[in-house]
Amino acid sequence: MKRIRIVGGTVIPVTAPGLWYENGHVTVENGRIVSAGPGEGEARPEDEVVDAKGKIVLPGFVNAHGHAAMTLLRGFADDLPLMEWLQNRIWPVENTLTGEEIFWGTQLAILEMISGGTTTFADMYFHMDRVAEAAAEAGIRAVLCRGIIGIGPDAGRQAIEESRAFVRRWHGAEGGRISAMLGPHAPYTCPPEVLRQVAEVSAELDVPVQIHLAETRAEVEEIRARYGRTPVLAVSESGLFERPTLAAHCVHVSDEDLDEMKRWDVRVSHNPGSNLKLGSGVAPLRRMLQKGLVVGLGTDGAASNNNLDMLEEIRLAATLHKGVELDPEAVSADEALALGTRGGASALFLEEGLGTLSPGAPADLVLLDENVPHLIPRYNPVSHVVYAAQSRDVTDVMCAGRWLLRNREPQTLDREKIVYQVRQIVSRFAS
Amino acid sequence: MKRIRIVGGTVIPVTAPGLWYENGHVTVENGRIVSAGPGEGEARPEDEVVDAKGKIVLPGFVNAHGHAAMTLLRGFADDLPLMEWLQNRIWPVENTLTGEEIFWGTQLAILEMISGGTTTFADMYFHMDRVAEAAAEAGIRAVLCRGIIGIGPDAGRQAIEESRAFVRRWHGAEGGRISAMLGPHAPYTCPPEVLRQVAEVSAELDVPVQIHLAETRAEVEEIRARYGRTPVLAVSESGLFERPTLAAHCVHVSDEDLDEMKRWDVRVSHNPGSNLKLGSGVAPLRRMLQKGLVVGLGTDGAASNNNLDMLEEIRLAATLHKGVELDPEAVSADEALALGTRGGASALFLEEGLGTLSPGAPADLVLLDENVPHLIPRYNPVSHVVYAAQSRDVTDVMCAGRWLLRNREPQTLDREKIVYQVRQIVSRFAS
Repeated sequence: MKRIRIVGGTVIPVTAPGLWYENGHVTVENGRIVSAGPGEGEARPEDEVVDAKGKIVLPGFVNAHGHAAMTLLRGFADDLPLMEWLQNRIWPVENTLTGEEIFWGTQLAILEMISGGTTTFADMYFHMDRVAEAAAEAGIRAVLCRGIIGIGPDAGRQAIEESRAFVRRWHGAEGGRISAMLGPHAPYTCPPEVLRQVAEVSAELDVPVQIHLAETRAEVEEIRARYGRTPVLAVSESGLFERPTLAAHCVHVSDEDLDEMKRWDVRVSHNPGSNLKLGSGVAPLRRMLQKGLVVGLGTDGAASNNNLDMLEEIRLAATLHKGVELDPEAVSADEALALGTRGGASALFLEEGLGTLSPGAPADLVLLDENVPHLIPRYNPVSHVVYAAQSRDVTDVMCAGRWLLRNREPQTLDREKIVYQVRQIVSRFAS
Repeated sequence: MKRIRIVGGTVIPVTAPGLWYENGHVTVENGRIVSAGPGEGEARPEDEVVDAKGKIVLPGFVNAHGHAAMTLLRGFADDLPLMEWLQNRIWPVENTLTGEEIFWGTQLAILEMISGGTTTFADMYFHMDRVAEAAAEAGIRAVLCRGIIGIGPDAGRQAIEESRAFVRRWHGAEGGRISAMLGPHAPYTCPPEVLRQVAEVSAELDVPVQIHLAETRAEVEEIRARYGRTPVLAVSESGLFERPTLAAHCVHVSDEDLDEMKRWDVRVSHNPGSNLKLGSGVAPLRRMLQKGLVVGLGTDGAASNNNLDMLEEIRLAATLHKGVELDPEAVSADEALALGTRGGASALFLEEGLGTLSPGAPADLVLLDENVPHLIPRYNPVSHVVYAAQSRDVTDVMCAGRWLLRNREPQTLDREKIVYQVRQIVSRFAS
């Protein structure tokens, strides 16, 4: 691949708070960043030079938790109590989804995510081979797991076997762009013996695990009633945390829970948009950060958000906690942007450097148009990205050195075909 | 003006929950809506027909509280304690602003608001003649008031006289598109005798008043210490509520406060984005609605938001209270959209029908592109507008029957000139 030098833009490397370069450069070669900093960078005659004047250049966003194919159910049912929403509306339709349908729902999700500057996404769903194919074709970075429900007659055995096969097939595929995890769904759907079994398989296959944890008050009550402890402590007791673990949500967690998570270096996906919309609550993000937990941000599925817009999650991370804690210093713009980029990469146990623009890091980056009324004037580009930008300001997206979006046009996905297929699929759900 | 018939779009009239028309129409004549409903509407050969296929057609948004020219200070200072932010960063610069600078800052704000679908905005600032000129030129609907600070040697006399002259010059101007209010700033900057005087002038001039009220916990404490009652009860005691009053923020209000506001039909601008970012708190929106208060939504100034994006405020109104109250039924998508349109119009004491697409109402409307990944598939267009859309999905905006935006191009404002002027102005603030 040609060496690419992106010049003339405002470069935010997300390596340190308050750091950016006016008229900076990012040089990319063989899918990695060679150099990022002030000025034009070392020029070579054969460089492909990309003019980023009037653009902000920053790392691609990392969506640390979601269920991509749930785009198929975007806006299918809203404003309902959680269990009514899930049991009466979402699950009955979800249970009928075929692999082919999940492929197209996932491609729609990826199209939306790329259009909004996301270059890495995590996914927990089923028919995961089709999800991996969708991600492979799109050129996006993906961390994928088969959701494991450990109740019912087979106690999750089939899902665990599917997971094992999936990990073997896909972990490290596409030059490392696709990786796999194990996905025990939640403590209320996976009893301790299933979690123990997942931990063993995770050790055997050397992949991390991902679990929904302490999402709702009802979950805390149910787990307390069943095991006499909080969801965090119940999962810890099962031994799962001996494996590298990403916990999604963690809305209803005590200080003791957070200490336990810190002890095991459990990482968190904070999903403020979904937590608000489902009425789950507000996770104690600041306490997590104060305790030194590694935190990323996620959109969750489009049925509970209802978009996959990481700039919205970054903005919520920066504003929601200020409001709820009555403290304008609660989470700074710099912190929020770091959560949505390198924080997410760490939360997903991806390689050091991912989510920053720094030498050696994978070349996952975004160009964002500054020349729009809502970003003028400009004193601080980090403030603008976090507090004022919108995902449609994104013009160009690169993942692993390959352009996925140029001038807002997808380079790897067929927008018309995806939209056509999705509309065909959902015509059978319309209520 | 030619009769315009907008056909083929999905029309959301915002007249009743759950109501929309697939392939509906809106017919506009002489600045007003003649008809809105299913089908193509009554056709006349001379009609200008606008194809809205693939678009959602809905009322323009009403931004019920703000300080437009503060766009000049967008991102100038963030993440600071309120008083440090105001006293050390914002006020020193604000005090130096000239009328010319405020004109351009206001035009930038209007450009941003029009681009995002706002057709009415409220403004409390100074050099208001220049603000009114900016709004008149732009063709947007505006409700304007001179902010009155009632402390200091002249006890607000000059601001009250300026307000009186402003009301006489501008109230009802531009065919009623511009109206005026009186703007006593807040109970902590206007003692009771000043509020009483404002109430008298308001009665004399027959215009409503607008005041910041119960925005922060510190304000509540300060007013309690000074007057022995809450800000709401202190302002009520002054007699201000005998006049039609819009109260901005109302974050820290008791049940008794809300009852008092209801008794006087005090209307509210709920500004969730600004309240979060400044660490002010979360206003009890649901309790306000349960008590039957008239509520609109506002962005507040761009220095504390940091954009003027009403879709963000509508989304926050629909999601924030679900999360904070742990109730997914807290504020429905239909309610939130109504708050951001007709709720705001009522809160600003504008004519009945404004903020809806219904016969006789002013033709203030928006076309929004549905053919984007984040709005596909689509079961319910109201859900999509509230939970998934972004302001850059807006393609066309009409106010009082005149197009202000076509295919995302401003029709009345000179984008390049505004940006140039604003960049010139702010070069002297750069810290």
